[in-house]
Amino acid sequence: MELNLKEIRPYKKGAGYSYTLGAFPTMELIKKKKERAAAVVVSSRYEGSADFKELCEKENIRYEVNDKLLNRLSTKENCFVAGIFEKYEEELRADRPHVVLVNVSDMGNLGTIIRTLAGLGIPDLGIIAPCADHFNPKTVRASMGALFSIRIKIYDSFEEYKSKFPDHELFPFMLDGENTLSINEISHGELYTLIFGNEATGLPKEFAGMGRSIFIPQTETVDSLNLPISVGIGTFSFVHSLVGNGEKLS
Amino acid sequence: MELNLKEIRPYKKGAGYSYTLGAFPTMELIKKKKERAAAVVVSSRYEGSADFKELCEKENIRYEVNDKLLNRLSTKENCFVAGIFEKYEEELRADRPHVVLVNVSDMGNLGTIIRTLAGLGIPDLGIIAPCADHFNPKTVRASMGALFSIRIKIYDSFEEYKSKFPDHELFPFMLDGENTLSINEISHGELYTLIFGNEATGLPKEFAGMGRSIFIPQTETVDSLNLPISVGIGTFSFVHSLVGNGEKLS
Repeated sequence: MELNLKEIRPYKKGAGYSYTLGAFPTMELIKKKKERAAAVVVSSRYEGSADFKELCEKENIRYEVNDKLLNRLSTKENCFVAGIFEKYEEELRADRPHVVLVNVSDMGNLGTIIRTLAGLGIPDLGIIAPCADHFNPKTVRASMGALFSIRIKIYDSFEEYKSKFPDHELFPFMLDGENTLSINEISHGELYTLIFGNEATGLPKEFAGMGRSIFIPQTETVDSLNLPISVGIGTFSFVHSLVGNGEKLS
Repeated sequence: MELNLKEIRPYKKGAGYSYTLGAFPTMELIKKKKERAAAVVVSSRYEGSADFKELCEKENIRYEVNDKLLNRLSTKENCFVAGIFEKYEEELRADRPHVVLVNVSDMGNLGTIIRTLAGLGIPDLGIIAPCADHFNPKTVRASMGALFSIRIKIYDSFEEYKSKFPDHELFPFMLDGENTLSINEISHGELYTLIFGNEATGLPKEFAGMGRSIFIPQTETVDSLNLPISVGIGTFSFVHSLVGNGEKLS
């Protein structure tokens, strides 16, 4: 891979490369997506427990001690290790359940959701544009590197998504959904799509007519639960009702 | 209430007052804890939809247009409305279920958890020190003002908490808990305490021996779910199994 490190600049949305800032997401990059890793850059002051040099040699990834470059990449905090990776596209699998986020706008939320989906075992995520950039280093960091463990596909519209997966049963999560979320009473097959709206506005009204709309029971004390919490509760409930108690997720 | 606004300084942990920055949490302060509201301060450029002046007159809360003071209070962003409130202490109710956070360290996480507990209907939260400051304006903001809807009590140790509520059944959430979280199989009475550990370290091992330890099923892809997500899933599961499907929470 020919990459001139001198040309590497702070992240921009249109760039072909992005960065993992910090040891944890950089380790995840090497473990899960080494074919996209272009280089690992460490500080001359780095004395971490993870030996990136040895690992990079073993995985045939370019390794460089370069303080100047690290300073360029990490705008805010002290950062002693960074990975540079080539962006990539993936397709969702037609035989697996999905989560779809419609116009998610906050990178921290998106990263937290990615980590949650990886943890709960639903690693196929569709996102309807416009949306937060899933490759932005802030998102990568908020995901704790779980970005590299899940498949993400951006669609221009929900119709585009729907036309590709006609067999998935749709469950839009709405603040006035008809069905209360209940593990015992919402039966569903193995092919389902859980749909969540934007942080501020939720899902547009027309989603209520698609599939079976769902309401997460909540008090009137708060405006709504926040988006990552809703995704966590909704996804856990669906996964849990399928796998049964005590079965190990994979 | 005698409050000299000229003496109001940026928030400090030891201070007797704290602040709501922004219209939403300030509105929650007035609605839910007006007896603690010392003043509402607005920018001369404020043209919000909520008429704070009228509301403050009605509720007999001091109202002031004061750009200088606003600038002192809001360190980072533009802020057009702020509330000043007196800190207060509350006790948890002995006849209600609780959530206890052991050494929660991030103010954003704590605020999100507070909002989640208000939304899920478990408004009695114990926190074991050392911990993030629940009155810090960052926590208040992350809670979207839900701080004023729940009861929070800080304890010096878990033993202190436990001795005050001997009738609560304890459910420590651990990464190697014995019982898989399952709504159908974990039976519990109305008096329970869900216990969650610190973001980085989780609960100390000795908690495994208290009550019935719980493990939220998750893949090995991620290190763990993040704290607010775990609290959301755990609390939802317990509340849900008690109130039954479709019953309105209060």
